[in-house]
Amino acid sequence: MKATVITIGDEILIGQIVDTNTASISRKLNAIGITIAEKTSIGDEAQAIKDCVARAMRESKVIIMTGGLGPTKDDITKTTLAEIFNSKLVYNEQEGEHIRQLLARRNIPFTELNRGQALVPECCTVLHNAHGTAPGMWFDTPEGNIIISLPGVPFEMEHLMEDIVIPQLKERLLLQSIVHKTLITRGIPESILAERIERWEEALPHYLHLAYLPAPNIVRLRLSAYNIDGEEAERTIVAEFDKLREIIGDNIVGWEGATMESLIHDIFTRRKLTLAVAESCTGGSIASKFTAMAGASAYFLAGVVSYANSAKSDIIGVNADDIARYGAVSESVARQMAEGVRRISGADYAIATTGIAGPTGGSEAKPVGTVWMAIATPHGTIATMRNCGTDRSQIISRASAYAIEMLYDEVKNM
Amino acid sequence: MKATVITIGDEILIGQIVDTNTASISRKLNAIGITIAEKTSIGDEAQAIKDCVARAMRESKVIIMTGGLGPTKDDITKTTLAEIFNSKLVYNEQEGEHIRQLLARRNIPFTELNRGQALVPECCTVLHNAHGTAPGMWFDTPEGNIIISLPGVPFEMEHLMEDIVIPQLKERLLLQSIVHKTLITRGIPESILAERIERWEEALPHYLHLAYLPAPNIVRLRLSAYNIDGEEAERTIVAEFDKLREIIGDNIVGWEGATMESLIHDIFTRRKLTLAVAESCTGGSIASKFTAMAGASAYFLAGVVSYANSAKSDIIGVNADDIARYGAVSESVARQMAEGVRRISGADYAIATTGIAGPTGGSEAKPVGTVWMAIATPHGTIATMRNCGTDRSQIISRASAYAIEMLYDEVKNM
Repeated sequence: MKATVITIGDEILIGQIVDTNTASISRKLNAIGITIAEKTSIGDEAQAIKDCVARAMRESKVIIMTGGLGPTKDDITKTTLAEIFNSKLVYNEQEGEHIRQLLARRNIPFTELNRGQALVPECCTVLHNAHGTAPGMWFDTPEGNIIISLPGVPFEMEHLMEDIVIPQLKERLLLQSIVHKTLITRGIPESILAERIERWEEALPHYLHLAYLPAPNIVRLRLSAYNIDGEEAERTIVAEFDKLREIIGDNIVGWEGATMESLIHDIFTRRKLTLAVAESCTGGSIASKFTAMAGASAYFLAGVVSYANSAKSDIIGVNADDIARYGAVSESVARQMAEGVRRISGADYAIATTGIAGPTGGSEAKPVGTVWMAIATPHGTIATMRNCGTDRSQIISRASAYAIEMLYDEVKNM
Repeated sequence: MKATVITIGDEILIGQIVDTNTASISRKLNAIGITIAEKTSIGDEAQAIKDCVARAMRESKVIIMTGGLGPTKDDITKTTLAEIFNSKLVYNEQEGEHIRQLLARRNIPFTELNRGQALVPECCTVLHNAHGTAPGMWFDTPEGNIIISLPGVPFEMEHLMEDIVIPQLKERLLLQSIVHKTLITRGIPESILAERIERWEEALPHYLHLAYLPAPNIVRLRLSAYNIDGEEAERTIVAEFDKLREIIGDNIVGWEGATMESLIHDIFTRRKLTLAVAESCTGGSIASKFTAMAGASAYFLAGVVSYANSAKSDIIGVNADDIARYGAVSESVARQMAEGVRRISGADYAIATTGIAGPTGGSEAKPVGTVWMAIATPHGTIATMRNCGTDRSQIISRASAYAIEMLYDEVKNM
């Protein structure tokens, strides 16, 4: 069973926004056994929408469209769909009342433009958008296609997919399973990894497809199975990955979704350990990675973003003379930051970073990208220096990742 | 002049990654006057690639493809392009040597798979990838199309676009201007805004196209001009937006790219003010927003992520009895957090947040999403409570945005 995803909006074509809707829709469709044949983004232009829908109808049974359903003149998806299906727009009382109430709650008057949002092509089934003013629409075509139009606002689209579209598609279509599982490896470059696991790869059952997804210091290995019994495929994939553990066990981090911080999260929660962070160049990024995870309050005690030198000494007790002597970006300061925040928070472990995120502030001895990082533990403190790149956001994200990895290496066997 | 962007990779189709390459490529092409007709994502499958390229050649002069150039078996873009152009793969000595050196620097042996990365279709012009092992390729077709294949790694793709593709396209093609400018408004819902500016919109020159881009509390208005003199279009757009300031001046935040934090950044830098942050539920997200901006060290002194109650009292001096009496999520604690971090850092202004990010920890009186936020200033402290939603990441991002907006309202007229 195939689907085509079409996202509509000039803002996508000119690159003003990154389209996250298609990835979300794809995951949800894959999870119920629908393969994505193609994803296409087009502008707010009637002919482009018509051509694209016609093409998609030849390729796929299911077509999911997002965007172009707003109240203003630049939104033309609904009128274009009405033209495609030669259907007139009719006022839907229920949706109109819903929009009126939604606006009233936010003290917004119900205008003619809002009233227009309750107009829908007569031939469609309305998909009630509980979280917004643009209803979704479901069309069954004479050719046997299912065409679904959803608002582009990610939150509203997500709810419509979860609450209505996915359950309906499952009920209406006879679907087979798609299984994807991904194992994360680190420390082996893609080309070397491919050679080391070549014989394993060649011995895989023919219905499993292997993909390599490289990222800095990490390669994700994904095994996919299409249209075979789901539980059977899942078991086979897990068994094949278990064989892989015998070949490259030390380099396996965990399943997809297992980030370094989530592994630490699990270890600290399980072992009832506590964590604190002192950040200079990473500026709160490490703290926010941990606190983004539900349940972080069980172990994450405190973070200090000691950006100014005075904050390093006043709040976490770094010796001001040492800052003057060695510089804020130095092994001594990184160690004192980790030890200091561990002390003032009472945490078992602490991470510290201090570096030059740029674009200015670098020198020949300490160029932009130089980052000292330290881990304070109950058994002592370790520190290391890494060069984290040249671009400010790259430096912040790499320094955060490296420092978190340092802590992971300290606690991974607990 | 039109372009089609094709991104290749099963990981895109199954939604394992969000494709950010197309947005970046689109912005760069728009900036030199090339319109994007369509963006398409397809899987690592030869027939899909051939069909998609054939279709794109009918629609667009320029075709930019990314992905599928890695060393492993699942990457087939290069061999498929060689088939499309009926061209054999030949070993490129220079690229081979470059790959060998790049790997040597990282202590990675040069294997047969890496050697394969220096194989390129004989008919293409090689685009040297200084930052990676997969060279880009440029094909001039007999039909007059330009087909460019780039690696999918964003960093490598960005450099190839900037350093080679864009300059070459500018040199090779006769291009006209595309101008987009976006003004950010806040506080007026889209439908009301559309009515208030209706007469302005109707009086716009016919060659300017207006688009509404709504987000929570914000509507971005974009004016676009295609294929007219660039400087003239830019002047006209600025003049039209100036007229808009007379209608909804109080609601205009600034130009695209002007986030609340960047406006505060500018004010604090100009007025030599200093800032500190005390975060509980936002967990470092506010600090990281400010410190992500180059030059933040001029005013951002310190942040404290006082996640545990002990951190609230020990590090920033919130009265422990008040935490027990009113709860950590309370007006009293929010105020004391803002005042406390302002005091210990010596900053002029401070932001504080304390709330329930969920998914657990809510109660009837204080449901998940309840966030108290406070701003401490040289003239006193203000506090307010806002409900920031139901989902953890949504709550963190909304609470951060609202708290930053609160500070903006305090300092916007400075």
